[in-house]
Amino acid sequence: MKQMAGGAYARQALLPEGFRDQLAPKAEQEAALVRGLVDTFLSHGYDRVAPPLVEYEDSLLVGAGKTRAKQMFRLMDPDTQRMMAVRADMTMQMARLASTRLADAPRPLRLAYTGNVLRTKGSQLRPTRQFVQAGVELVGSPSLEAELEVIAVAVEALAAVGIGELSLDLTVAPLVAMMCDQHKLAGDVREGVMAALEAKDIGGLAVLPDASRAAFEKLLQAAGPAKQANEMLSGLELKGGAGKLVARLSRLTEMVADRLPDLSLTIDPCESHGFEYKSGIGFALFAKGGEGELGRGGRYMVTHPDGHEEEATGFSVYLDSLMKALPAAEKTDHVFLPFGTKSSDGNKLRVEGWRTVQGLDAGADPLVEAKRLGCSHILLDERVRPV
Amino acid sequence: MKQMAGGAYARQALLPEGFRDQLAPKAEQEAALVRGLVDTFLSHGYDRVAPPLVEYEDSLLVGAGKTRAKQMFRLMDPDTQRMMAVRADMTMQMARLASTRLADAPRPLRLAYTGNVLRTKGSQLRPTRQFVQAGVELVGSPSLEAELEVIAVAVEALAAVGIGELSLDLTVAPLVAMMCDQHKLAGDVREGVMAALEAKDIGGLAVLPDASRAAFEKLLQAAGPAKQANEMLSGLELKGGAGKLVARLSRLTEMVADRLPDLSLTIDPCESHGFEYKSGIGFALFAKGGEGELGRGGRYMVTHPDGHEEEATGFSVYLDSLMKALPAAEKTDHVFLPFGTKSSDGNKLRVEGWRTVQGLDAGADPLVEAKRLGCSHILLDERVRPV
Repeated sequence: MKQMAGGAYARQALLPEGFRDQLAPKAEQEAALVRGLVDTFLSHGYDRVAPPLVEYEDSLLVGAGKTRAKQMFRLMDPDTQRMMAVRADMTMQMARLASTRLADAPRPLRLAYTGNVLRTKGSQLRPTRQFVQAGVELVGSPSLEAELEVIAVAVEALAAVGIGELSLDLTVAPLVAMMCDQHKLAGDVREGVMAALEAKDIGGLAVLPDASRAAFEKLLQAAGPAKQANEMLSGLELKGGAGKLVARLSRLTEMVADRLPDLSLTIDPCESHGFEYKSGIGFALFAKGGEGELGRGGRYMVTHPDGHEEEATGFSVYLDSLMKALPAAEKTDHVFLPFGTKSSDGNKLRVEGWRTVQGLDAGADPLVEAKRLGCSHILLDERVRPV
Repeated sequence: MKQMAGGAYARQALLPEGFRDQLAPKAEQEAALVRGLVDTFLSHGYDRVAPPLVEYEDSLLVGAGKTRAKQMFRLMDPDTQRMMAVRADMTMQMARLASTRLADAPRPLRLAYTGNVLRTKGSQLRPTRQFVQAGVELVGSPSLEAELEVIAVAVEALAAVGIGELSLDLTVAPLVAMMCDQHKLAGDVREGVMAALEAKDIGGLAVLPDASRAAFEKLLQAAGPAKQANEMLSGLELKGGAGKLVARLSRLTEMVADRLPDLSLTIDPCESHGFEYKSGIGFALFAKGGEGELGRGGRYMVTHPDGHEEEATGFSVYLDSLMKALPAAEKTDHVFLPFGTKSSDGNKLRVEGWRTVQGLDAGADPLVEAKRLGCSHILLDERVRPV
């Protein structure tokens, strides 16, 4: 009987893959990082909003939400028998708010958010299936000043929580398709070219006629430090939408370099993976020397009920990536208060910023007890002493 | 076509009953309240932990979790095809942590937590199906000092977020069953008595023989201010477990009155509803003059994998109840920064604690723009002026 209970418990102790218990001091570090990020967002006039974890499935599958369809857990609403889904990303919820409840709020609309998102499957890059997202959305301004603001807020927020040296990678997700149109590429050739660019495989461009190949090769070679990349891109002498996009990119690069001179700037004009729902310039931030991406954002369109579209730019940080880029949290100091300590003495210490641990056992030796409980200090004879 | 899109959107704008978008300034107020509560918990040496929103169903259905079985949403894990559930309460997760990963951590173990919980159905008292819970668990001390500490921490945390005048209602959930055992009540009579006590219906006690009836009538009449209640309960001259429980209650009342003299203290010895999984003294906190309960807690048992049980006491606040008891949040001041304001000027204001809103439109009249955006102030000629 007890054996069985033990077996059941051993199983219970196991969490489903990709879910985890965050313990102190990590749980506290994560909460402090969220505070730090959101405080910066609010200081730039972004209004905090908190949408629910669960919505009707169809309201999470609008626009950009479609790209997350397979990642969302579904729940049956027992009241209405309608399918609901757990959010896999909070960006769509901001678009929903901007286009419905906040449709009449003055533009540009600035929204800040943080919360948990769940995914049905972890990816290789991010095996966890629950993580905290924090971000901002700036809705209703088509100006490049919007991109600049969002990038500046993101950089300031990350600096505020301890990520000093950052590198920014700019992308132009729609560019490749625009160039394919201009070169009248279709069918297998078009798909081959897009795959080759995605894979950074110059050999894959061999399928192209000479005239086009040169342009796509240059595009591939342009990836790298921003100044150089912009020169190469302008050498392509692109026309129409592609030309405008490249000009915007070049102008934004100047604005960012001017405002944030310490930021390393790179451009990847072939990158579109993960930027599927971005309609213009996208960007990703990396800690210098670190491996993983800390957060990403970019321009996209919010679709309103009457069908009209509104320009928006946003940025999101994933807390698990951020935690990996920062030194591990250290254990906090605690003062042990021996049994019988006056509650006013404990109060006084807490007001001074100490964390106290009250002894509950009248018979125990205070110093032994303080050590056993892992306290760094003890209150003895009305003085705080190291243990 | 557009009509259809409009219709689809109108539906999308609707959230499932019991779920809601929290907008500014409410979302910010809630986040600030959570901060305030948890900061107090941490200052008393409670370690912050953050369990996942989702676990395997069976790990959430252990012990006290069984009472929540119908309230939990179920999800299928696509990886393992095992059923998972979304937590409907965080207390069981603390018990799981205490009995598994933290089984060897020194006792008493102090845990603090906050997070969202989901429920399949709203209740009349709490129609929302998602809300934020914040609380503490003190595991491994059978002492009354543990109850005292948890009550004191709860009162201090609520005071820190603005609930000044509180009233504490103490309960002894197992008492009624113990008295029924002593009076050898069984079957319909026992159930009738328990229902009558629950409903505070003295007439329902008429089924009892005279000798027993007097005792149960006294129990019912004892409900009220603590001093009086304790006198009446001691007059019952209860023996065995019931006697010990009543003596503990009386002792705790003295300790609480001594430590927290401003707290109104009441006792409800017949109350067991909602305290099903409490093994001893339970308590609920109310704002004086307010209607709703702000939070509740009490003593319960944590069952370990080897079958042994460990004493624990905890306390939980529900943020929706807390928000109702506090004045509505006010809109925050914002300074409008006209287009072209130097970014260093904005920085300076933010360091001083201002929230800034950057103008993105070069052509707009700054004062008109500041008003349109709802800013309280504007930066003009390097000075902050009211709008």
